[in-house]
This record gives sequence, structure tokens and C-alpha cells, in this order.
Amino acid sequence: VPTFDSNELKQFAGRLLMATGASAEEADTVADVLVSANLAGHDSHGVIRIEQYMRMIREGRIVPGAPFEVVRRAPAMALVDGHWGFGAVIAVRATLLAMEMARTTGVAAVSVRDCNHVSRLGHYVLMAAEAGLVGMMTANNHGGGRWVAPWGGTERRLSTNPLAFAAPTAGRPILVDITTSTVAEGKIRVLRNKGLPMPEGWAIHPDGSALTDPAHMYGPPYGSLLPFGGMAGHKGFGLSMMVELLSGALSGAGCTGAADRPPGNALFILVIDPAATGTLEAFQSEAAGLVDWVKSSAPVPGGAGVMAPGEPEFREEERRREAGIPLDDETWRQLRELAAGLSVPELECTTETQRHGDPEF
Amino acid sequence: VPTFDSNELKQFAGRLLMATGASAEEADTVADVLVSANLAGHDSHGVIRIEQYMRMIREGRIVPGAPFEVVRRAPAMALVDGHWGFGAVIAVRATLLAMEMARTTGVAAVSVRDCNHVSRLGHYVLMAAEAGLVGMMTANNHGGGRWVAPWGGTERRLSTNPLAFAAPTAGRPILVDITTSTVAEGKIRVLRNKGLPMPEGWAIHPDGSALTDPAHMYGPPYGSLLPFGGMAGHKGFGLSMMVELLSGALSGAGCTGAADRPPGNALFILVIDPAATGTLEAFQSEAAGLVDWVKSSAPVPGGAGVMAPGEPEFREEERRREAGIPLDDETWRQLRELAAGLSVPELECTTETQRHGDPEF
Repeated sequence: VPTFDSNELKQFAGRLLMATGASAEEADTVADVLVSANLAGHDSHGVIRIEQYMRMIREGRIVPGAPFEVVRRAPAMALVDGHWGFGAVIAVRATLLAMEMARTTGVAAVSVRDCNHVSRLGHYVLMAAEAGLVGMMTANNHGGGRWVAPWGGTERRLSTNPLAFAAPTAGRPILVDITTSTVAEGKIRVLRNKGLPMPEGWAIHPDGSALTDPAHMYGPPYGSLLPFGGMAGHKGFGLSMMVELLSGALSGAGCTGAADRPPGNALFILVIDPAATGTLEAFQSEAAGLVDWVKSSAPVPGGAGVMAPGEPEFREEERRREAGIPLDDETWRQLRELAAGLSVPELECTTETQRHGDPEF
Repeated sequence: VPTFDSNELKQFAGRLLMATGASAEEADTVADVLVSANLAGHDSHGVIRIEQYMRMIREGRIVPGAPFEVVRRAPAMALVDGHWGFGAVIAVRATLLAMEMARTTGVAAVSVRDCNHVSRLGHYVLMAAEAGLVGMMTANNHGGGRWVAPWGGTERRLSTNPLAFAAPTAGRPILVDITTSTVAEGKIRVLRNKGLPMPEGWAIHPDGSALTDPAHMYGPPYGSLLPFGGMAGHKGFGLSMMVELLSGALSGAGCTGAADRPPGNALFILVIDPAATGTLEAFQSEAAGLVDWVKSSAPVPGGAGVMAPGEPEFREEERRREAGIPLDDETWRQLRELAAGLSVPELECTTETQRHGDPEF
């Protein structure tokens, strides 16, 4: 598998974006967010998206240089119109704004509308946690990305509506970065491409039975992903509705199904400063104690033991910083083709490694 | 089944609490919170708790008349020490404080420590939603209530760590009120008392196998509840950790396992004012549109169709306001005994009805 040094891959991604109209600052931010997703093992949110972003720029759906407009402000809340700029650029600025406000007010929220694809929510809540703050973030897709049936129903009504949370500890932060569906759509695509069935419980057939053929997620009769939760799927559905309202209704971008808006990410970003009513040190120590406590449980026999939320991603990041980021052949072919078309110098593989572990992680 | 008018039951509960030392205002608040849980069908959080509260007052673990102390304040955040007063009284005051702050700052949070059992979180977030605000709330148990294994482990490390959310719509609010475990402990107690097994997926045996015998949740070899999520149980575990940190670490009450504190509820209450950066009307209209959209899905064949989060509770409330609140014989026996011991006049049953539906809902 073609494998790349993360810094070189980031610079290459940045050059491609600049060649399509992004400013140096925008290109750097977008490349950083995408490569950080690859580092964490979430390849579906990484540089595989560059082809999509470059296409969206050509179609006018991503607007390089779009203004970051704070439309309304309250002491601890702001509404941002991203004017369809790069999602990552808007989300980074909105997160920094929420962090700055929370340092003064204790807790602060930023709502964002007219924002393009932001990649992995974990990136932004980690910005907060690494600065000693607590971050929470939700995103919906308003017009698009309908994959998930509501609990009790068989038709697609919701997108995978992710929610992320991060908090500082004495070591690496706690990072929760989840969709409110059983799985992300990318995992089904992988099984379909491999000709493998889905496990029972991921999806529902329009007749109400368990759907295991991934082809029916992409062609008639169309199945639906289920909200996560198994027998308690009403809980995942409830959280998905929470994500819709926080992201789509507070920002004015709209909730799924309610309006004919172009698909994008509406965001809700919440930041809390533990030092506002306590001390960061006490918070970190409490969080570290909690991690030790849950990890002291006996492991499920044959399992990997208890890992703190985010630990799998941090482990993968360490591995890939060292060993490089493996790209699948199709993504690498696309990126080379884009580079050739834009006269961007091609990137050299550092190594041809065997993939370690599941590419979907 | 002995069945009672909800207003009369509330007054009776209030008289019992006043006879044990609660002020009229405290008794009214606690009775209101408990009876509202019964009305919603959550009997395990209702007047069944009065016996426990009266015992805790005698033991000095609930302190009637305890001061509600705002220990620290930032513009949009406050830390409250409840001094071990009635949990419901503290939680109502903390919610009102967060609501008042959010009207000025847009978003506001209140952290609470040294707080007793608050019953159903849904009660408090509904206070916000019914006032046109968005509410979110989490609670942990710091010292107590260990029932849940961390994902990947087989030993109890966490309590059922609930999370609630409510938002206004054109009609009744959206209400999400869930534990981050597969089920609440009360449901297992009911099965044990009936001699019935648990469904596979609720709990794990210390040897790592599925645990279906509810007796092993109460005696050796002790099993553990699982985090909710089924195959995606790491998501429920992540949310449980989020609840611990928001509730226990921000408030200074402590996270589960980290300290030897008396069991209680540490709280995190977040309130957002949709009018701070938009209008309440636009938010309500968006929320109502979302509800219509998810309910337009074809139902799972043979199922009840799609219900909005909170709809089952609101339906039960309407039914019980009309038909009365049925109490199980043991709870009614306890309450009569308590009343007799305190010379509180006994309550008359309004009717002897057949129970409608599952008492555990």
C-alpha cells in the first residue's frame, strides 16, 4: 500500500487546494484537518475528500475566501454565517471564537450555518481539550445525507448526525466522536466493495426485516441504517433528534427534511472552561482518576481490555506518525491525477507497507 | 390496583414530607417532581421514593432547609453547593438559575454538588423547554450506584449516568431522557421479582458471557449492566464518560470511583435561549417540521409507528391525569404505614383499576 509521511502528505494536500483557489491559510487548515483524520485512522474523513472539495470549488459549492461573518452575538453565544467557505476553515474559526468567549463567560456556544463539509468533529473538540477546555459539538446535514430511519420506522429520514465531546486529562484528552447511527455510511461502502454482508443490526429492510445486503443501501429496494442502541435504539434516535435541533434549528440552517437547502454541515459548538468555577488541575486530576478507575476493570476474556474513549484514535495516530499514512490505491490514483492536471509536483511514497489493521478502524 | 388522582397524590406526598421536617415549599417541590414522574409512567422515579427520602432525613443524609449556595459565578456559569438538601429542590433552583442566566447570556450552565437524589432529569429540562428554552442535563452518582461495566470490561465501574435534553416545538416539547446503560436498574429488579430472565444484551457475566439471570445483578457472581449501543456499545460508554466528566469533574463532586464520597447526584445543567441568535418562533417551527418529517416514515410492520422523543411519556401523562396514577401494592402499603406513623390522614383511592400497559413503561 502506498504510504506517506504525514507532514509531506499535508503539504501535498495543501498544494492541491491552493492550485484550485484556496489561500495559503485556508489550504493549510483544510489539509491539517484532513490529515489529522487520516492519522486518527478515520480515512473516510481524510485526504480522500480532496477530490470532492476540488470538484465543489469548481461547481461553486465551496467558495474560497468566503467571509466568516458573525451575524448575531449574545454575551455567551454567537451565530456565524460561513457563506459556504471551506467547512474546516469555518469550523476552526468558530471553535476558536467559542473558546475565546468561554474564557470570559465560563461557557459559550457558537452556531454555524452555510458551512461546507467539516470532516471529523473530533478535530475541533480536541482543539478545546488541548487548550484546557471542555468541548462538545454536533453537526447535521439539513438538505442531504439521508441514511437513517427513525426508531419505529423503515424509511430514511435522518443523516448520521454525529456528536463529539472532548475533555482534558493529565494525559491525552478523553475524546468521544460518534455518529448517532449504528455505523457511518463509509463502513457499508467498504463491505459492498468487498462483496461482504453487513452484520444484522446495522440496517433495516423496507419490509421491516434485518437488512444485510449492502447493495440495498445504494439501490432499490432502499434500506435504512438504524439509530445506534441495539434494543435501545430509541436512545440513539433521541440523540439524533437532539443533534438536529442543536445544529439545524439553533443556527437557522434547518433540520433534515424541513427545507430544500443545499446539503452542508450546520454546527453547534459548545465550550466550557473548567477554571470558571473550579481549577483546570482539579478537573484534569478527576478525569485521570476516572480513566484509571474504568481501566481497572477485568477485560472481557479475549478482548483488548478497556480503552478510554479516544484511546484507539490516539494509538493509531502515534503509529501513523511513525510508520506513515497508508492510502488505498484508488485515493492515491485520484490524487496523482489531480496533481498532474494542476502541474503540482507529485508526492513520493515513503514506503510501500502492508496495511496494519482494518483501514476503517 | 389502587389508583389515585394525581393532585390528591401530590398533596398526600407533600403532607408526608412536611411531617418529616420539610418546609411547605420543599414538600411541594419534591411532591411535584415525584408525581410528575408517576404521571410520565416512570414509577421507579415517583412516590415510591418517599420512603427512601424520609429514611434519609432521619439518617441526616437529606437536610431539610439546607441553603442553596452559589459558590462561584462566571457571567454564564455558576457552581452550586446544595448542602445535601432535597435533590429535587436543589435541581429546580439550579435549573431556574440557569434559565435566568441564559436569558441574558444566550447560553448558561450550572454545576451542582452535594445534592441528593433528583428523580427524573426530564422534569428539569422540560422546565426549560416549556419556557421556550433548550435544556440539557447530566447526572452522575460519584460514590454510588455502580452497575455498569466499561466497554471491553466485565466489572462494574459506572452508574447508569443519565442524560436528558428538551426543546420547544409548536406542540409538546421534544424530550430525550435516557440512561447511558442498556436499561435502568429498576427494570432488572422487576424481572427478578417476577422470576423472569433478562433479554440477552442487557448485562454481562463476569466470565464475559451474556448474563440473563437477574439474580446475578444482586448476588455473587455479580454481573454488570452494559453501556447502551448493542454492537456499538463503545458509543454508550463514551457518553457515560461524558456524563461523568460534565457532572462530577466540573462540579468538584467527583467522578465514580475516584473518591469516597457519600452517594448523591452531581449535576450539569445547560440552558440555551434560541432567541439569543434567532427567534423562538423559528426554532419551534423548525422543530415541528422535523417531528412531522420523521413521523412521515412508514412504520415498522406491526409496530406503533414513529413517535417523537418524549411522546410516549406525554401520552401516558394524559392518560394518567384522566384515569389516575396506579400504585403497586407494596408502595401503597409503605405509604399508608408511613402516614399512620406520622398521623397524616390516609389518602382514598379514587378507583381500583386494572393496570393499563406495562408499569415499567
